[in-house]
Amino acid sequence: MSNIREIARFAGVSTATVSRALSHPDKVAEKTLKKVREAMLKYDYRPNMMARNFRATKSFTILVLVPNIANPFFSTLIRGIEDVAQKKGYSVLLGDTRENEKNEDEYLSLIETRQADGLIQLTPYSPGSKLYPSYVLAVNAAGCEGTPYPTIRIDNREAAKTAIEYFISLGHRRIGVVTGLSENRHTIDRLKGYKQALSEAGIEYDSQLVVEGEFTMSSGKIAADQIVKMADRPTAVFCMNDDMAIAATQTFKSNGLKVPKDISVIGFDNIEYSKYTDPPLTTIEQPALKLGNVAASKLIQLIEGETLTESQFILPHEFILRQSVTTVLNNS
Amino acid sequence: MSNIREIARFAGVSTATVSRALSHPDKVAEKTLKKVREAMLKYDYRPNMMARNFRATKSFTILVLVPNIANPFFSTLIRGIEDVAQKKGYSVLLGDTRENEKNEDEYLSLIETRQADGLIQLTPYSPGSKLYPSYVLAVNAAGCEGTPYPTIRIDNREAAKTAIEYFISLGHRRIGVVTGLSENRHTIDRLKGYKQALSEAGIEYDSQLVVEGEFTMSSGKIAADQIVKMADRPTAVFCMNDDMAIAATQTFKSNGLKVPKDISVIGFDNIEYSKYTDPPLTTIEQPALKLGNVAASKLIQLIEGETLTESQFILPHEFILRQSVTTVLNNS
Repeated sequence: MSNIREIARFAGVSTATVSRALSHPDKVAEKTLKKVREAMLKYDYRPNMMARNFRATKSFTILVLVPNIANPFFSTLIRGIEDVAQKKGYSVLLGDTRENEKNEDEYLSLIETRQADGLIQLTPYSPGSKLYPSYVLAVNAAGCEGTPYPTIRIDNREAAKTAIEYFISLGHRRIGVVTGLSENRHTIDRLKGYKQALSEAGIEYDSQLVVEGEFTMSSGKIAADQIVKMADRPTAVFCMNDDMAIAATQTFKSNGLKVPKDISVIGFDNIEYSKYTDPPLTTIEQPALKLGNVAASKLIQLIEGETLTESQFILPHEFILRQSVTTVLNNS
Repeated sequence: MSNIREIARFAGVSTATVSRALSHPDKVAEKTLKKVREAMLKYDYRPNMMARNFRATKSFTILVLVPNIANPFFSTLIRGIEDVAQKKGYSVLLGDTRENEKNEDEYLSLIETRQADGLIQLTPYSPGSKLYPSYVLAVNAAGCEGTPYPTIRIDNREAAKTAIEYFISLGHRRIGVVTGLSENRHTIDRLKGYKQALSEAGIEYDSQLVVEGEFTMSSGKIAADQIVKMADRPTAVFCMNDDMAIAATQTFKSNGLKVPKDISVIGFDNIEYSKYTDPPLTTIEQPALKLGNVAASKLIQLIEGETLTESQFILPHEFILRQSVTTVLNNS
């Protein structure tokens, strides 16, 4: 399947330059024009066909819908998408949806008007949300169980379970958790892992130890302030992302608690900042770059007319042990 | 000037829905279609004209070119752009250029093919870089002195000078600086402020105290490791962004130095993470949200055919005093 990308690659120029050579040859340097025309000859392409192909059929553009670009986990994942897209001759456009359906509709019109060939959705699917029309090629990255279209993700339940089991192995029994919004699918999957680990260790689930956050730093601070004031404070806290864990750690410390001596903390994601907190944060790594790589390559397969053999791709998470966790002291 | 946005607003639907009502009325609910048609009647618009207007003349889309979406300073600025764009009926698309001209060319083709009406560039202009063709409407946000097109920024030189003057007021004389890449225009402007503050205080400039970074956390760590090993170590360090300051602070501490007792640190940007470091980071705030607001409204003015009365808009920076700085001890 020859196309504008191959012409671009052979001519050693960008697809934008090939497009310009076709639409506005006067704006392209003579030398470049020559290279593009040689490439077109080699591939036996008539310029008109090419232009039609480029304009009407494909944009070689992938749209990525991001719920919160301020979270560095997503920016790393996007880099992973871009790396693969670039190699395959696709551009990446980002739409910051803030999880708002109206924003999302505006971006979807890019697909309808063929300004993008397909999309990667970074907000986890929830049963209430709309399905894409059949002409929209879409994959979901870093999502959750039960997503009804191709999905590249980790096993959130298992990952959360790993964190709690580690706390338990160090003697912790009162283990708090700072969640995302309660209806968020990541919250639901990870909370299942939390409960399962407790139950397998014979520890009773106590809803008072579950504090709702919003995956933001400010919500992590508010949750930590609540935990500090608890009569029977947990000795360990699992935060469902690093942003909340970073804010919670500093909030515990500014309230006179020592981390990890008085309270152990585990985060989730392994964003770069988690290496530079004091103490450095123990966390669960989601392979952000890899999730992005696989999502891009699966979407491009779909765009190029291939069918996927599976629809759920589960990548391994990793437990990252740093200094924010210690054995429980006999203070209970 | 009536347009698709007004139809959308009046009908209480998104512009995407209006567009769909025009191009694929069969895909739109009867009730919605009725509302859109009423709005078109009210504004005395013939659907064909509308469709032509929507498709050929304007996309109501702004393109934002970002050098590094992993830096939360940029994500906040982008939120500022989106807030204004949304109010005025424009969508925002992001292109992550990684400061690579080839990537930028790909994105520029969106303007050439009228898929975006104009762009906001977040990489500072440098004299070597290409100028945009005259048909590209562009503004620069968070840039530097000497940008030859409309620019919304702070006075980087003054802002850096403020940081150094504060160190000097506390008795510091050996003041280190961790810069961005030496050819980066922010590095150049801020280094001027550093030198000017020293010179006005009668302190001799010592190039050994200038350590080159790359505005990334890993480069902040490397720079701090270098500073720790200096024979005549500075008592205070100004880092040209918060990412480097956060990594440097933790690196100093893990080398046994106390911050700020042994070494004071000031950052730049005031990203949210700087509130949650230990100690919380003293920094210079760039008004990221406001920079984004003004950049969007200036670009939209240009897109809508207005002329700007000025071309350089300088917003005030702010000195944010937290706990990472103290008076110099008599150890020199």
